[in-house]
Amino acid sequence: MKRFSLNQATTKHWPLPDLVAGCVEAGVTGVGLWREDVQAYGVEKAAALVRDAGLAVTSLCRGGFFQQDGWQDENKRAIDEAATLGAPALVLVSGGLPEDSRDIDAARAHVGEAIGTLVPYALDAGVQLAIEPLHPMYASDRCVVSTLGQALDLAGPYPAEAVGVVVDTYHLWWDDAVWELIARAGREQRIACFQVADWVTPLPAGVLLGRGLPGTGCVELRRFREAVDAAGYAGPVEVEVFAEDVWSRPGREVLTETLERYREHVE
Amino acid sequence: MKRFSLNQATTKHWPLPDLVAGCVEAGVTGVGLWREDVQAYGVEKAAALVRDAGLAVTSLCRGGFFQQDGWQDENKRAIDEAATLGAPALVLVSGGLPEDSRDIDAARAHVGEAIGTLVPYALDAGVQLAIEPLHPMYASDRCVVSTLGQALDLAGPYPAEAVGVVVDTYHLWWDDAVWELIARAGREQRIACFQVADWVTPLPAGVLLGRGLPGTGCVELRRFREAVDAAGYAGPVEVEVFAEDVWSRPGREVLTETLERYREHVE
Repeated sequence: MKRFSLNQATTKHWPLPDLVAGCVEAGVTGVGLWREDVQAYGVEKAAALVRDAGLAVTSLCRGGFFQQDGWQDENKRAIDEAATLGAPALVLVSGGLPEDSRDIDAARAHVGEAIGTLVPYALDAGVQLAIEPLHPMYASDRCVVSTLGQALDLAGPYPAEAVGVVVDTYHLWWDDAVWELIARAGREQRIACFQVADWVTPLPAGVLLGRGLPGTGCVELRRFREAVDAAGYAGPVEVEVFAEDVWSRPGREVLTETLERYREHVE
Repeated sequence: MKRFSLNQATTKHWPLPDLVAGCVEAGVTGVGLWREDVQAYGVEKAAALVRDAGLAVTSLCRGGFFQQDGWQDENKRAIDEAATLGAPALVLVSGGLPEDSRDIDAARAHVGEAIGTLVPYALDAGVQLAIEPLHPMYASDRCVVSTLGQALDLAGPYPAEAVGVVVDTYHLWWDDAVWELIARAGREQRIACFQVADWVTPLPAGVLLGRGLPGTGCVELRRFREAVDAAGYAGPVEVEVFAEDVWSRPGREVLTETLERYREHVE
């Protein structure tokens, strides 16, 4: 239980004070937070709320979207917010192709360069930029970084304390190279964050809100947890599920089930 | 135009005699056929219809689904049908995970073994088994073979005349390793079939019927065609689009637009 972290997205409609109280009551020690929710509550106020409750902020989602106007200022703000919250890692969802572009090579190269410009700022703030490879079904409209290998290659030029990667079971489970890539990520000391969700079908329209709680799908979740452990990762294990049917339930009930499933399928 | 082939799935509701007449009228010389449509019309009758019209059958879709009971007999029937139609290649959609299984490694290994058992039968029939890697979003429920590299590795133990691979732009476009893998497929003389569809978002529920006609999406289609050419492939270029909005239109109109788009974006 001491590595479990509840990513706020799993209980999307649970107000932050209730989520914090529910975590404390359940013995949960870490939470992954989302910028829009934290901003709506107030960043300083959220930082105090979580700190006073004794919870660690295990990550902040999300920076990235390097194709959008103003990405540099927006990502600096995200880094500032992560620092204020005490989150060690800012998860980067790198964005899709620019409008009307078919040049995914150029888009991927741009992500690497964009991250490079943020490195000094991130180092100053003490926040690690965590490149998250997203499932290839998001490559055009959400994230051109599709594999753990690509994420590691993009991180490569920069110090590991500034740029790491996210290992998320939902995005990577299909890749038969992932076990070797997790070992590489460990050797390169790049694993900034480990997130867990299960793969369930059929996928919903838009393919964003179809993730499953641990054990409801087909991913070898424990194998992933053992692989990141074997790679030297000893950090938090965030359960992060986006699903309308999960979101429609009370936060406390979802947390209870998530913890049971975590123990059975991940721990 | 002499390499263009209309895959029957693009004009799904166009009756076979009309499709054949429409292709002849448009100067199209090849068609890719589907088993269920051919069976409904009669295999021998379809073979005669297409042959008498002077059209080549460039592929038959599909064998595979090696997790289903009776896969061996079913695939032999598919090979027989391909031989009857004069199709050089039987496209294999290998199937997803067995029910309640999370062992994708085992499922992939089973695909290789299953194909191996069919090799003598395919060689006798003069039909090449064409392993199609499907997009990773289909890995659990439709096809555990997710990359061209996996398909080539599975084909590797068998003679190229018996087992090849399908290069389909829709399934492979996101993979930055695909250019090197196409070159490898060429060196190993495994490219059995080249299929073209474009990637468009948002994806529909179930993610099956959201493909785009050439040029409507974000895939570098001409780069793919040039890559298979550079790899030594000189065979047909099938346009294969699954999309409700395309299927709802008259076949002749879709063929006309497909040809225009093929010339502009592929040829």
